Amino acid sequence: MLISYRVDDLSGSFIDRLRKAVAIPSISAQDENRKDVFKMAQFLASELEALGAEVEQRPLGKQPGKEHLDLPPVVVARYGNDKNKRTILVYGHYDVQPALKEDGWATEPFELTVDDQGRMFGRGSTDDKGPVLGWLNVIEAHKKAGVDFPVNLLCCFEGMEEYGSEGLEEFIQTESKKFFKDADAVCISDNYWLGTEKPCLTYGLRGCNYYSVSVSGPAQDLHSGVFGGSAHEPMTDLVNILSKLVDPKGKILIPGIMDLVEPMSEEEKSLYPNISYTMENLHESLGSETGIHPTKEETLMARWRYPSLSIHGIEGAYSAPGAKTVIPAKVIGKFSIRTVPNMESEDVNKLVFDHIKSEFAKLNSKNKLDVWLQHDGKWWVASPKHWNFTAASKAVQQVFGVEPDMTREGGSIPVTLSFEQATGKNVLLLPMGSSTDAAHSVNEKLDKRNYIEGTKLLGAYLHYVAEEPMNH
Amino acid sequence: MLISYRVDDLSGSFIDRLRKAVAIPSISAQDENRKDVFKMAQFLASELEALGAEVEQRPLGKQPGKEHLDLPPVVVARYGNDKNKRTILVYGHYDVQPALKEDGWATEPFELTVDDQGRMFGRGSTDDKGPVLGWLNVIEAHKKAGVDFPVNLLCCFEGMEEYGSEGLEEFIQTESKKFFKDADAVCISDNYWLGTEKPCLTYGLRGCNYYSVSVSGPAQDLHSGVFGGSAHEPMTDLVNILSKLVDPKGKILIPGIMDLVEPMSEEEKSLYPNISYTMENLHESLGSETGIHPTKEETLMARWRYPSLSIHGIEGAYSAPGAKTVIPAKVIGKFSIRTVPNMESEDVNKLVFDHIKSEFAKLNSKNKLDVWLQHDGKWWVASPKHWNFTAASKAVQQVFGVEPDMTREGGSIPVTLSFEQATGKNVLLLPMGSSTDAAHSVNEKLDKRNYIEGTKLLGAYLHYVAEEPMNH
Repeated sequence: MLISYRVDDLSGSFIDRLRKAVAIPSISAQDENRKDVFKMAQFLASELEALGAEVEQRPLGKQPGKEHLDLPPVVVARYGNDKNKRTILVYGHYDVQPALKEDGWATEPFELTVDDQGRMFGRGSTDDKGPVLGWLNVIEAHKKAGVDFPVNLLCCFEGMEEYGSEGLEEFIQTESKKFFKDADAVCISDNYWLGTEKPCLTYGLRGCNYYSVSVSGPAQDLHSGVFGGSAHEPMTDLVNILSKLVDPKGKILIPGIMDLVEPMSEEEKSLYPNISYTMENLHESLGSETGIHPTKEETLMARWRYPSLSIHGIEGAYSAPGAKTVIPAKVIGKFSIRTVPNMESEDVNKLVFDHIKSEFAKLNSKNKLDVWLQHDGKWWVASPKHWNFTAASKAVQQVFGVEPDMTREGGSIPVTLSFEQATGKNVLLLPMGSSTDAAHSVNEKLDKRNYIEGTKLLGAYLHYVAEEPMNH
Repeated sequence: MLISYRVDDLSGSFIDRLRKAVAIPSISAQDENRKDVFKMAQFLASELEALGAEVEQRPLGKQPGKEHLDLPPVVVARYGNDKNKRTILVYGHYDVQPALKEDGWATEPFELTVDDQGRMFGRGSTDDKGPVLGWLNVIEAHKKAGVDFPVNLLCCFEGMEEYGSEGLEEFIQTESKKFFKDADAVCISDNYWLGTEKPCLTYGLRGCNYYSVSVSGPAQDLHSGVFGGSAHEPMTDLVNILSKLVDPKGKILIPGIMDLVEPMSEEEKSLYPNISYTMENLHESLGSETGIHPTKEETLMARWRYPSLSIHGIEGAYSAPGAKTVIPAKVIGKFSIRTVPNMESEDVNKLVFDHIKSEFAKLNSKNKLDVWLQHDGKWWVASPKHWNFTAASKAVQQVFGVEPDMTREGGSIPVTLSFEQATGKNVLLLPMGSSTDAAHSVNEKLDKRNYIEGTKLLGAYLHYVAEEPMNH
């Protein structure tokens, strides 16, 4: 296709564009870099304007809890306004995680460095500057090729994703009736392929209910020599309760939880065998052979479509190296349940609270129990049969010559649900980077192949979007 | 008695002596106060010399791990050298815990402040400057009364007790054949009455075996969204193991542990009912009614003569406030067992290790277990029938008009065992302060009554020591 050839021709300038973006240390978590986050917003806005888009930098006000700081703007843009074309809303973020050479980077984190294997190292290369610039590259390739842009494109690029997306949810809510009101579907490129060879389309995410359970007794910490044996110890009770939540094979021991889980259909089951994933991939990412399940199918199902329960830690107990003979007066256990369809948060909460209270009652302790939900985030599942997914699947086949893996993810990407709920439209997660990109870590990179073929993929996706019949 | 009247006459100058000592912030844990610890050593040495004692300040070398600091000297002194008299070795410490007004003190911590109830507030007042000066006061009262001193007194006053008694154990070992070689018995005044009215003599201490148990799996911390449900989680395993150590009523679940415990004799049992202690005392010190046992006897036995197991905390897990969705890669549980006669450390270790390995094996986890002893300290029990105790008991009756409580303590005072083992002589713990003195805490105090009557008690003790027949 004309566009693909043009992308290849322009690949040098596309990499330059990424180089310029990586050079701006737009770290949202560090006060001293807030000016760079604004600089990055301006860079994006200027590039989009030069390509002919209508661009606005929308302020989000002061940062809650840090009122001396302005939140970075949301860069919104519209490219094309043809009533006869579909309108696709794309999301990405232009802020990055912190990075210091001393953390163990082999190269300067804010200088894009391309090695002889085509790996482009730099903070933000894959998360999420590469994918964001992918959309700009697609516009440029169309302009330079003289090809009509197949859709109207709406952009929503935020600058606080790595610091909790402050203010974004309300912004999406409001703009769903305004700037985003024409959107026919949403595409987000901010996750990763399952491996390194085969692209994937992601149609589901687990939710997360995060709990605290506290046990308290004495008015202050006690000396274990003086009081050990004569007083009910909160840690003894808490450890007992935590041991009743999940077994070593990951089976959740809270009665009724598994009854909430949507049964597996044959159709869903059939998606798993073809997925490009092996037990070796699991062991590699764990750095150990401590996987629970014997097959890739069970492993992926356990991650994506079944709930899990993890115990994260205990607040209030002794946690430093060395030895301290303390009986902590109040300890707070932290655990979370990854939720899946059709687990409603309130139902899960009730089962959790009832179980913990019942287990505590069995202990006959004089200590005091409390259990509460710290926060919850709902699971998300989209229909992979929607034209939005079909178009992306055809694009993958055209650019990469393979059928994409149809994946879900175990973690949450809250913005996905925000867009679905605010717009009521289908949301597709269409990643550009691969599993080895080390987002949030040292030596973050994006492979040249993923960036350039990924740009082609985004372009091809928009073309197929324009062609797909309306099926939903 | 002559001495008692003289102590009353001199009480104003004895309180002045304590005021001068409290004014020196001899905090051994803070580098910037090391000069004050030395100053306090010099103060003690000068006072002792003025009273006619032979005094030496013995250097202990550089502080291990902080080689820019000299360890404070041990102040050793001899008062009297009469072969026809018994020789009593007394121990105390002249360093103190840190203290800042901002911590919540009602008065300046390094200005002795006497209120209208006779409470003398100040850091170090009860722990341990008051008791140390008690011995000096006894010498002065004898001199001023013109009464022959009843024994030869050897003093061993250290300046690092609140920071691990660095170097002291070796010093005691060496000096037991030299400066301390004439000692017929040892008296330590560095603990507290069980309540506020009745003095006690302490004849036993529990030991402590402190353990770490680690479970490790993945090579690095994992994201619970991505890996929850597909990998064995070290926290799940550890919490399970920790829940198999002790039940909520304090019963140790490690098979064989209780078989090591010396059975209770009728004679020992008979010591408990008379002890001045109530369940209200327990509830007051706990700040809650979360005691395990219904009676004072069971409560005190659980503290003093039975072992206990406390879980102190977990290293490597999430311990901060808030929420973090981490699967910790390696977690280390910390727990300790308070030991009593006749639990030998090696026997306890074997039972602990075997039990934990056997419980871990039941989990069928692919994670890796490790369990080790961090440190141990032996229990100590002296014969309360020794003339050293009989003399102290008579002294209590003479000065306070009551029979002392015969107590043990749940915690350890390692120097007790060091003196017993090095000298081979009977060691008596003869406290001056009361249970409400708040050593190590804000508003530490020593009651005027405890200081002045306590000085009389130390003097009377030395007189009875001189009179007691040799029974051991």
